Amino acid sequence: MAIIKGNMVVGQSGGPTVVINQSLVGAVKQAMKHPEITGIYGMKHGIKGILNEEFIDLKQEDDAMLEKIANTPASALGTSRHKPTPEDCEKIFAVFEKYNVKYWFYIGGNDSAETCHIVNEIARKNNYELRVFHIPKTVDNDLMGTDHSPGYPSAAKYVALCFMGNNLDNRALPGVKIDIVMGRHAGWLTAAAVLGRKYEDDGPHLVYVPEHPVSLEQIVHDIDNVYEKYQRCIVAVSEGVKTPDGKLLGEGFINEKDMHGNVQLSGSGALGDSLANYVKEHSRHKKLRVRADTLGYAQRSFPNIYSDIDKQEARMVGEEAVKYAMKGDIDGSVALKRIGDYAVEADLIKLSEVAQKTKLLPKNYINKEGNNITDAFLDYALPLVGELPEPVRLKEVAVIKR
Amino acid sequence: MAIIKGNMVVGQSGGPTVVINQSLVGAVKQAMKHPEITGIYGMKHGIKGILNEEFIDLKQEDDAMLEKIANTPASALGTSRHKPTPEDCEKIFAVFEKYNVKYWFYIGGNDSAETCHIVNEIARKNNYELRVFHIPKTVDNDLMGTDHSPGYPSAAKYVALCFMGNNLDNRALPGVKIDIVMGRHAGWLTAAAVLGRKYEDDGPHLVYVPEHPVSLEQIVHDIDNVYEKYQRCIVAVSEGVKTPDGKLLGEGFINEKDMHGNVQLSGSGALGDSLANYVKEHSRHKKLRVRADTLGYAQRSFPNIYSDIDKQEARMVGEEAVKYAMKGDIDGSVALKRIGDYAVEADLIKLSEVAQKTKLLPKNYINKEGNNITDAFLDYALPLVGELPEPVRLKEVAVIKR
Repeated sequence: MAIIKGNMVVGQSGGPTVVINQSLVGAVKQAMKHPEITGIYGMKHGIKGILNEEFIDLKQEDDAMLEKIANTPASALGTSRHKPTPEDCEKIFAVFEKYNVKYWFYIGGNDSAETCHIVNEIARKNNYELRVFHIPKTVDNDLMGTDHSPGYPSAAKYVALCFMGNNLDNRALPGVKIDIVMGRHAGWLTAAAVLGRKYEDDGPHLVYVPEHPVSLEQIVHDIDNVYEKYQRCIVAVSEGVKTPDGKLLGEGFINEKDMHGNVQLSGSGALGDSLANYVKEHSRHKKLRVRADTLGYAQRSFPNIYSDIDKQEARMVGEEAVKYAMKGDIDGSVALKRIGDYAVEADLIKLSEVAQKTKLLPKNYINKEGNNITDAFLDYALPLVGELPEPVRLKEVAVIKR
Repeated sequence: MAIIKGNMVVGQSGGPTVVINQSLVGAVKQAMKHPEITGIYGMKHGIKGILNEEFIDLKQEDDAMLEKIANTPASALGTSRHKPTPEDCEKIFAVFEKYNVKYWFYIGGNDSAETCHIVNEIARKNNYELRVFHIPKTVDNDLMGTDHSPGYPSAAKYVALCFMGNNLDNRALPGVKIDIVMGRHAGWLTAAAVLGRKYEDDGPHLVYVPEHPVSLEQIVHDIDNVYEKYQRCIVAVSEGVKTPDGKLLGEGFINEKDMHGNVQLSGSGALGDSLANYVKEHSRHKKLRVRADTLGYAQRSFPNIYSDIDKQEARMVGEEAVKYAMKGDIDGSVALKRIGDYAVEADLIKLSEVAQKTKLLPKNYINKEGNNITDAFLDYALPLVGELPEPVRLKEVAVIKR
């Protein structure tokens, strides 16, 4: 099948990650190798860039600078949370026709895959040759069909380190510490809290994820039990944890909704504070020292904390998308397939497989009680984050009392 | 003057830092060189370790492990926020007599210096030869008499990186972002938010510190002005910022007090959330996207983010304290004196100079409007944190509209 000639558009969507520019640079540099791709246009601020016809000429960027861009966290093209309407999708197609765009690479999560899917269908209906590729990206790791999502390993490393520090801090200055972790629907990032555990009594001692509903009473009960055993307790709580009646644990405190109709949770210190106060009031232990932190945007944009594998893979999925596009009449979402311990290869799956779907933590990654993460998850996630520091402890030989 | 023979006690107090174990190991390894120091005892959980006579025999720890301890964040001996009463201080002295303790090294902030000072006075009154040394430590950097406090450079680096990531994130996905930074009385750590700025429009665009009172109205006004200029705004707010009537900005939301009678601020997501809501409601701009994060305990305990200079200096002040103690009848607090650009040497200052005092940001580090940090601060702080990453931007050559 003949390779079509025309312009290419590439864009970044949704929340940034620290490796999302690796995917961008991977796609751009790969595209530069192919004369069939005439112009390489970057979408300014995601879908808005197409709707407003604001494109950047990426052929004007030099190679050395592109490499530095790849190592800069957060979306270099700008991003957006705008969810396109059906009219927007028609407009996107119209703009593509106008600019002779034949290749579209969109780096994002399941909402972006959905947009890709819709626009691709419109192109087909119009007999317009368009190659549409979704390049996976999300710190939430909740995309279907891929072993994991680029962006997740680095975010998971940040979360693991944060809890490692919190564990050392809490051991030095005991009490109850609650940390709220990102992850609206799935507990992948919250589960990463356990990756830095080393000693038997290391925290987090309790982990609550959206996949397993839990009541406030149960949380207090669990904390009290851990506190009795260790005189301290660290709790990892996903922002998306639900109570058995299906409501968000944090509902009632939070009343803003984002463009996608989701309850806005990021940066909501209220959930942590409210939970801390609730635990303090309802604990069996008097005068319990309870503190809460909400890990915040640092999870997705903190510089310096990268997983090397994540960098490489994020680059690879960008490159592979362009390689697939050069193979003829195919579209899809680039996926990572684990083929060894540890190795991956690229795979191409249908846009509809990824669009608007959410991959949850499998049942065997959550313990029976629904308050901790199993070793099966370690086997999955440890190779992704790479080496972590190894904190040590004093032998603590007691001086004999006089 | 003859060097006295006897046991040594070393302890860690207050909030942990990532380099506080460097000071511990510095003191312990230095002490091992001196036969006059017979036993080397570690206080378990700060002052409580003395009051409960819970000491660790640090001579039992081997060298290689001590080096690993030095590189482990948070107080390896355990720490405490217990503020000793006058009776406690008498008890401390009595325990020292009982255990033949002649040397006391206490790693901590200005409360710890005060405790050192009181116990030292009791020893003098009793004609008991005791060498008392305060070893400075605090992420807040608010100790008098020293150029800076070990622990601060690493925490400052974490804060600088956090804001660097937030700035990239916010540039990619514009809006108003408020970050609450630790620092009850002084704005040192909040000021560090500016250390990663590179481009003219990089955030934080506004910085509020306890040294300069500000009203909520003024904050909204400032944010609106920045937003008009850049269509985005990042704000660094110290947890200790006060309104012109002398009240804490966050007062009203927070009602718990810690052992020292201070209003408890750490981990208070409520301040950030309340401020974000206030800005949203009172901004001239409709539907402003305002988010808030509270940086939390990661500021003082996040592993992997160290300043190399901080590591070296934290080790040095521990070693120097012991060296001073070997010089005869002197006591005091070890200080860092800046002697070059950049170099420091150790200095010894009176315990009473440090005790219970707070070093504020000098006036020339804050701009006239009281909403930003000047270049004079950069000259002071940049050498402390060391090299930071250099994020880059695309050239952004626009594609001509069709």
